[in-house]
Amino acid sequence: MPSEANGQSIGAGALLAILRDGQARTRAELAQLTGLARSTVSQRLDALMSHRWVVTTEDAISSGGRPAAAFAFNENVRVVLAADLGATHARLAVIDLGMSVLAERAEELPIDRGPEATLDWLVAAFQEMLAETGRDQTQVCGVGVGLPGPVEHASGRPVNPPIMPGWDDFPVPEWLGERLGAPVLVDNDVNIMALGEHWAAGPEVDHLIFIKIGTGIGCGIISDRRLHRGAQGAAGDVGHIRVPSSDALCRCGNIGCLEAVASGASMAAALRAAGVEAQGSRDVVALMRAGDTRAARLIRQAGREVGGVMASIVNFFNPSVIVLGGDIAEAGEQVLAGVRETIYSRSLPLATQHLTIRASELGDRAGVIGAAVMIVEYVLAPETIDQTVTG
Amino acid sequence: MPSEANGQSIGAGALLAILRDGQARTRAELAQLTGLARSTVSQRLDALMSHRWVVTTEDAISSGGRPAAAFAFNENVRVVLAADLGATHARLAVIDLGMSVLAERAEELPIDRGPEATLDWLVAAFQEMLAETGRDQTQVCGVGVGLPGPVEHASGRPVNPPIMPGWDDFPVPEWLGERLGAPVLVDNDVNIMALGEHWAAGPEVDHLIFIKIGTGIGCGIISDRRLHRGAQGAAGDVGHIRVPSSDALCRCGNIGCLEAVASGASMAAALRAAGVEAQGSRDVVALMRAGDTRAARLIRQAGREVGGVMASIVNFFNPSVIVLGGDIAEAGEQVLAGVRETIYSRSLPLATQHLTIRASELGDRAGVIGAAVMIVEYVLAPETIDQTVTG
Repeated sequence: MPSEANGQSIGAGALLAILRDGQARTRAELAQLTGLARSTVSQRLDALMSHRWVVTTEDAISSGGRPAAAFAFNENVRVVLAADLGATHARLAVIDLGMSVLAERAEELPIDRGPEATLDWLVAAFQEMLAETGRDQTQVCGVGVGLPGPVEHASGRPVNPPIMPGWDDFPVPEWLGERLGAPVLVDNDVNIMALGEHWAAGPEVDHLIFIKIGTGIGCGIISDRRLHRGAQGAAGDVGHIRVPSSDALCRCGNIGCLEAVASGASMAAALRAAGVEAQGSRDVVALMRAGDTRAARLIRQAGREVGGVMASIVNFFNPSVIVLGGDIAEAGEQVLAGVRETIYSRSLPLATQHLTIRASELGDRAGVIGAAVMIVEYVLAPETIDQTVTG
Repeated sequence: MPSEANGQSIGAGALLAILRDGQARTRAELAQLTGLARSTVSQRLDALMSHRWVVTTEDAISSGGRPAAAFAFNENVRVVLAADLGATHARLAVIDLGMSVLAERAEELPIDRGPEATLDWLVAAFQEMLAETGRDQTQVCGVGVGLPGPVEHASGRPVNPPIMPGWDDFPVPEWLGERLGAPVLVDNDVNIMALGEHWAAGPEVDHLIFIKIGTGIGCGIISDRRLHRGAQGAAGDVGHIRVPSSDALCRCGNIGCLEAVASGASMAAALRAAGVEAQGSRDVVALMRAGDTRAARLIRQAGREVGGVMASIVNFFNPSVIVLGGDIAEAGEQVLAGVRETIYSRSLPLATQHLTIRASELGDRAGVIGAAVMIVEYVLAPETIDQTVTG
């Protein structure tokens, strides 16, 4: 149901949404496109111009008589700051409203240093990057952040994040917002990676599942081009789905969870139990690449186990694309083959005949791109623009 | 993203969507609410009135000066026809645009008589019901139909429906549209039942799963208040998800499918193999009610098996409500207890703490109510109204 059904009017934001395609238009054209009164169009263009969302183009448009001024979206005037914070690494970017990356960096950053130290570093890094690109903080219109743990969607606060000591219920949006002077949206890393991969896959993909196989296993769900977060924001938590024929003990206390047999952490533990030095998921993939047959066998089996769980999800959800990401996905065909084989043999033919199952397109960059997508969509949403220009 | 983002204007349909709340409004109020020019409001009201979607109210509204005319949605002027066709029974209704049921009937109707005979009967029955309610065919603005098999969403045609001989690829919308003179939407029975149960549950429920346990097993999925059909319209086909610790042969040719252990057909077959007379799911429930312990045991086990599959889906999808329907759901707590027990013991606490698991509110009427919801939402969608009044 479009928003007009709720009785909303065509505000400045809706005008900007029309101009977002990059084409310049005259007042008359905008009045005709929207049905708005000419005076209303002028009012709203004035509001948008006073906030520099819209500029008059140099070439006036003439249709025989006096040339009329044309108006265009000013996609370079503002930037968004995007950060994907992992357990030990961070990737940051400064991106304009047309999704062009102006600056990007990846650094080591242990998240267990706690929120203040981590976010202090983040603010300083963003300020350096702004300076590098010749921008300043007044041009920042929003900050998108991904965190490696559960985040309450409404408040943007971490909720009992297992690998982030000190972060529980920390007011990340307020803390960053005060220092960076812009609205802040926070979500978990898997959701922002799903947004990034969906942006890369293109808007014609309606239903996409991004599954991350790293230390743990989780997925981000796109239904009808929008992130499906579920009733408690807990959707996508597939790591503790029970797999048949396993009685492995999971760190959650249950037995037979997918994570207990197919996560990087469980594979590393299995290798250590066999006397092989392996700390985490990256070591497991490195061992496989070095020719360790035990690591290769574990990874192939992990692919089949993930495929078994995804086969049920394919029957239930009928996505058109499944994207594999995370450290273990770096194993490429060694893990993808088992995922594909199991999904194709167990899901219904109708649901698999046009299904694409592939590795991440953006790799390590999926999260930071997704964080930018999240904030650009928020900032340019008509409701937000209306608040900005009238507030 | 609201539809203004696509550059759509506030048309007659958007005005009607505002008036749909039942409140009468003046031209000036509508101009203020929408930002439209007064002349545009008048034009669009004229179009809506010429199609009788809108009427002037008897009480003019005065604010001191000359009384101004007020305009209101005319929810009684048109009706929708709704039909839920099952394998052996049909339920039909004539419903107005405010979702008041004007006439309803349930009759035996074997769908294996083929499309022409079945739809001929349907047209005749609808015409009788219209006459009973004092309406005629010119007042029908849409026809919603549910069928007991897969339906291609775009064309409304059945796709290889297993229990509907002769219906494959039959042009149901065109056939009914010609005879009833109104647009026709067709979907499978489980999807329309999900729409009906979601309407009954109320608009505050964002994510709902309706699971039907009858001869087969399938579910309808509501994500963000909208039906999630999936990429091929195959979403919700949970009957062939593999359950652990079963090697029962399924009618689909695979082993261990949920339907092979928890459907009415499989339970009736198990009872027959034990020498008990049971043709289908209704017999299984009747036997249980008559005190047959084998039937009761099968039904309780079916609840646990369905719960096992739903436990994974709860982790993945995080719904706020799960509704059980279909013949086997008539067994009430005997089946619900196992579903609940298994979901609560295997799903993540965050996903179950506010989860409601209950039997259908509408029972046999879920399908016909859902078929009406489907067509009312379509008919009153701003795009449809715009086409109607300008076409």
